[in-house]
Amino acid sequence: MLLKDVPSAQNIEDAEERIHSYIHRTPVFTSTQINDLLGLKVFFKAENLQKVGAFKMRGASNAVLSLTKDQLKKGVATHSSGNHAQALALAAKMRKIPAYIVMPQNAPEVKVAAVQQYGAEVIFCDPTLEAREKTLKEVVDQTGATFVHPYDNYDVIAGQATVAREMIEDTDHLDGIFAPIGGGGLMAGTLLSAKYFGKNVPVYGAEPLGADDAFRSWKAGKIIPMEYPNTIADGLRTSVGQKNFPIIQKYISDIITVTDDEIIEAMRMIFQYLKLVVEPSGAVPFAALIKMKSKLKGKKAGVILTGGNVDLSKLPF
Amino acid sequence: MLLKDVPSAQNIEDAEERIHSYIHRTPVFTSTQINDLLGLKVFFKAENLQKVGAFKMRGASNAVLSLTKDQLKKGVATHSSGNHAQALALAAKMRKIPAYIVMPQNAPEVKVAAVQQYGAEVIFCDPTLEAREKTLKEVVDQTGATFVHPYDNYDVIAGQATVAREMIEDTDHLDGIFAPIGGGGLMAGTLLSAKYFGKNVPVYGAEPLGADDAFRSWKAGKIIPMEYPNTIADGLRTSVGQKNFPIIQKYISDIITVTDDEIIEAMRMIFQYLKLVVEPSGAVPFAALIKMKSKLKGKKAGVILTGGNVDLSKLPF
Repeated sequence: MLLKDVPSAQNIEDAEERIHSYIHRTPVFTSTQINDLLGLKVFFKAENLQKVGAFKMRGASNAVLSLTKDQLKKGVATHSSGNHAQALALAAKMRKIPAYIVMPQNAPEVKVAAVQQYGAEVIFCDPTLEAREKTLKEVVDQTGATFVHPYDNYDVIAGQATVAREMIEDTDHLDGIFAPIGGGGLMAGTLLSAKYFGKNVPVYGAEPLGADDAFRSWKAGKIIPMEYPNTIADGLRTSVGQKNFPIIQKYISDIITVTDDEIIEAMRMIFQYLKLVVEPSGAVPFAALIKMKSKLKGKKAGVILTGGNVDLSKLPF
Repeated sequence: MLLKDVPSAQNIEDAEERIHSYIHRTPVFTSTQINDLLGLKVFFKAENLQKVGAFKMRGASNAVLSLTKDQLKKGVATHSSGNHAQALALAAKMRKIPAYIVMPQNAPEVKVAAVQQYGAEVIFCDPTLEAREKTLKEVVDQTGATFVHPYDNYDVIAGQATVAREMIEDTDHLDGIFAPIGGGGLMAGTLLSAKYFGKNVPVYGAEPLGADDAFRSWKAGKIIPMEYPNTIADGLRTSVGQKNFPIIQKYISDIITVTDDEIIEAMRMIFQYLKLVVEPSGAVPFAALIKMKSKLKGKKAGVILTGGNVDLSKLPF
């Protein structure tokens, strides 16, 4: 994999044009109280208000809308029990093509129902990595559907890059942008948009301490997968992808790890001051900014609130 | 009190002009999932994202900015332990005038601190109606401050009217607008804006069953105060005001009462589908719309989400 293959500025602009009727242009919020508490100005890009409640709708839409005529007929497939599954199902529904979602048998009922509600076909497998990949391969072989990986895919990366592009357009010069690292789809896209459209504004990666594979991989100079992730931020338990890591390695300014307690406190502050519902993963970048606040004193920081799909009966505060 | 004294269209436009740099123009949100569930299109005006987390900032700002030069010097006073107290404190702070807030000794610590944080002086009294009014009178006598009633005040009503005016401007023709009735400040303002700017769009009042004094007053044709309110919607426990009731009586289309269970379910749906934090009172109009959904099938309804100041450690779902 070579860096010359990564999405160009034109690819990201094309993605924006392609997906704009499939997504919301989400608002950017500020809070005087948060600014006063932190001693800097924070701009929150509210992707929790995106369709399906997460930024994943952008990458999934761009992947679906980039298919050829022949590919469209056969539909799309993926393995996911998270926000990407719902996003791909909805994008496929809007484009009127089939979607096949491989999910572990023990996936929460509510996540299965959400995907089915968008008209996707759910195929269950044993809850192991091997079973998941084997089942996905069978589905693709049988249906001819195009596999849309949740993050290790340049169309997905170009779609996720539109978050930072919009945030840069909708704010004055920022001194730093904070985004989370799970598989690295959003992070790779954010880094590219910061480079192309943000005059190289520094980008800070935020990772849960209990799933800090990107931090350790970055330090080691090679991918070290996460074997036993242990964090409340369920959207960030995945390991960084093959196409994502080189982009992170080349462009990221720093990676900040945060504890679950720090994530929960950041989440509570977002509920309290911004009146917005975010999932634990969605609060990780703000937790990282809080940790960095003295370094950015008096400056302007952009924070991506990535999603809001949280079990409301089990809020951690 | 005569209906000819109520705010005119010009008064409301003047209020909008006066307060626009003191408030946020809040966004209007929609949710495909909510629309599908209810069988109609719902437009949510997000006043939970307003400064101090509630629409009260509008009326308080308009009252402060309508003071004469002499009145400004002496400041403003009110009795409130709710959102009006914070709103008046912040508006006074922004205008750089003193604010005196009378609060019962047993007011929650966090509410006292919030008001003091905005630089207002808190004066404590016994937790009775008599003590509150006596203490307020003493404060006004001593300081010369202007009393700004939370709702029974035409400047406040004109300020609150800007919520519906903005919602009407930012949506296509609505078939109905839903707002809550507590003291009636927001409701009176909503009715006037619907009449002046909304081509007489029907306005539906929403009230907790456990504080249904407006409903009973409306039926009786005279004010019947609420003696023992009992509802989770703490912002709507007050009885309807003298200046507010005649406007409600003349212009309202219907008043719908909802149980606490219905309020909690509406609140949960707003968290889940809109990803917005609302307080119980803020969910009451949506609870009323859910009850009316068959009557409005296929139509377009506007719903005011009035506030988001809820104790996050005590969410009722």
